[in-house]
Amino acid sequence: MTVDWARVEPVDAVAGAAARRRIDRLTKPVGSLGRLEDLAVQLSAIAGRVVDRAYDRKAVLIGAGDHGVTEEGVSAYPAEVTPQMIGAFLGGHAAISAIARAVGAVVYVADFGVRVASAPHPLLIDVAVRRGTTNFARTGQAMTLGEVQSAFDAGRTALERVLECEAYDVIALGDMGIGNTTSAAALIAALTGSDAGSVTGRGTGIDDARLARKRCVIAEALAQLAAFDGAIGDDPYLKATTIAARVGGFEIAGLAGAILAAAERRIPVVLDGVIVTAAALLAVRIVPQVGGYCIAAHRSQEPAHTIALEALGLEPLFDLRLRLGEGSGAALALPLVEAASRMIAEMKTFAEAGVATETDPELS
Amino acid sequence: MTVDWARVEPVDAVAGAAARRRIDRLTKPVGSLGRLEDLAVQLSAIAGRVVDRAYDRKAVLIGAGDHGVTEEGVSAYPAEVTPQMIGAFLGGHAAISAIARAVGAVVYVADFGVRVASAPHPLLIDVAVRRGTTNFARTGQAMTLGEVQSAFDAGRTALERVLECEAYDVIALGDMGIGNTTSAAALIAALTGSDAGSVTGRGTGIDDARLARKRCVIAEALAQLAAFDGAIGDDPYLKATTIAARVGGFEIAGLAGAILAAAERRIPVVLDGVIVTAAALLAVRIVPQVGGYCIAAHRSQEPAHTIALEALGLEPLFDLRLRLGEGSGAALALPLVEAASRMIAEMKTFAEAGVATETDPELS
Repeated sequence: MTVDWARVEPVDAVAGAAARRRIDRLTKPVGSLGRLEDLAVQLSAIAGRVVDRAYDRKAVLIGAGDHGVTEEGVSAYPAEVTPQMIGAFLGGHAAISAIARAVGAVVYVADFGVRVASAPHPLLIDVAVRRGTTNFARTGQAMTLGEVQSAFDAGRTALERVLECEAYDVIALGDMGIGNTTSAAALIAALTGSDAGSVTGRGTGIDDARLARKRCVIAEALAQLAAFDGAIGDDPYLKATTIAARVGGFEIAGLAGAILAAAERRIPVVLDGVIVTAAALLAVRIVPQVGGYCIAAHRSQEPAHTIALEALGLEPLFDLRLRLGEGSGAALALPLVEAASRMIAEMKTFAEAGVATETDPELS
Repeated sequence: MTVDWARVEPVDAVAGAAARRRIDRLTKPVGSLGRLEDLAVQLSAIAGRVVDRAYDRKAVLIGAGDHGVTEEGVSAYPAEVTPQMIGAFLGGHAAISAIARAVGAVVYVADFGVRVASAPHPLLIDVAVRRGTTNFARTGQAMTLGEVQSAFDAGRTALERVLECEAYDVIALGDMGIGNTTSAAALIAALTGSDAGSVTGRGTGIDDARLARKRCVIAEALAQLAAFDGAIGDDPYLKATTIAARVGGFEIAGLAGAILAAAERRIPVVLDGVIVTAAALLAVRIVPQVGGYCIAAHRSQEPAHTIALEALGLEPLFDLRLRLGEGSGAALALPLVEAASRMIAEMKTFAEAGVATETDPELS
């Protein structure tokens, strides 16, 4: 079993360097826009040319799925909340709805495996692989390898559907799935060789008893994976998908597929918190060059998020002490992406603007 | 000489507490939106009621002025750049123009004392007190006390003119003025009792020789102020305005006036970097309750900025390694303000949305 992601090209360093040269001649001190400049360089490297227009077509894609492991009492909320929150997203009165309106983005929801299907809606993409994963704490396996593959494909399909609605310049990714910080933390631990203690967090806000239970569930899963490790071999695809099958979730694998598909199309993706970043790490373990297409929005409160960001070599743009998910942090970064694109596309150089400088060699 | 800022009321802690109670019942885990929640509480305290609509009417007001101290070679750019950059702001091709378009804000420029007057423009407010300050390194005095007072009044006038154009919900403040980091650093040092070494930074990017010269200019000004200190007395208004007259600038005093006037009208202001934050510190030393109306957008690269933020007790929302001014960082925070307002105004509570929770007492 293999997957054809061969079409993912590395980002274009030559275009990035050309972008940097243009930025250095704009009417501002060299380097004075800090990380906004780095972002414009990255956007240009992703596009394969110096960005020359505003990235104002912005979408949020929320991957949703349910987790059998919620049976273990690892979450503060019951699994019924997943479809209820999808209703809130589509109804436009959830946190991400309010944030998306503030940043001018459209919110899509992809159902990669929610226990209860939602009624059809123009912004809902139903690509469910199965209605909820198996409880890996009981069975040792959340999904089959075939289901992981199907979830990758579902992610690609979801991304294609979003792009059929509009040719978005940038897509912020989010998640919804009660129990999914347990799955994401275990996945990140397994992919990075971290232990349960360092990846387990309070998710949406569990108490000490549930936190201890969650840590045990993750530790046991990691121990089982370690015992199984020798049988997997060194093939990166097989290794990553085996880990995903054991402790992952449909929305995590689906989001990984969406990230891979966005990279294929040279579209930048903005990562949200621990779930989406776990998906990005999974995608990068399969196709390393995908990392260049990822922008880390914020540092969430989940400890595994920081571990995943470090493994990806990404520095978040801000830290607002968010721990919600839904793509809330990623959506808040979309104006920064648009501002970076407008900076490089719409500002004049010193020479073009006829502004004096002591340092610009272009000025006559 | 006194000024009537008695109309500035403290922010309303009762409204803030009511906002917190509503936020805690919205369809998200308690506290999960972190600093966005704090922002919504602050906006409600400023408004004097729980915010119930989107803060989508956003403006940037750039205060501009020239500085006699540029004669000392403290800046990387000649003073001619100030009016040239005003032309770029009004022409829509400066960094702040691109950023403002990305965040949906209108950019106004207030000329509080630029050496060369700009041609009339609908977005230019000419309230110049005098065409550039005196070189305080040579004369010991940048402005007269009367001019400081006039600049405060000019700031109020500028804010009123902006609000005549539209009833903005929030105003991001920015600055333009070659040489103004020298003035702002000296002002912050004098107002906080810091020394020249800890406040002097590279501004727009000066070399080591200019940096050393800048530090000397600031140190000498502080020594003169210290010698003069006993004569000023303890009246906070007289003390602050005397310091402003000695080392300040027309745009810094003008921005302080705009901040005071915004607080009078219960309008939140978003602070940019070291110049605007120096203005906020000046305003707070005159009317302490003004601090509650201020939102710190970002942490700039200038060391004096962090000192001023600490003196104000403000924690910035992000750090993008910006050191441009123009209101660039403040403008980038406007979507966060709008998102916070929409979160509290447009999200449903668990009970309203009929979403299950194990913790919400409202749910039947």
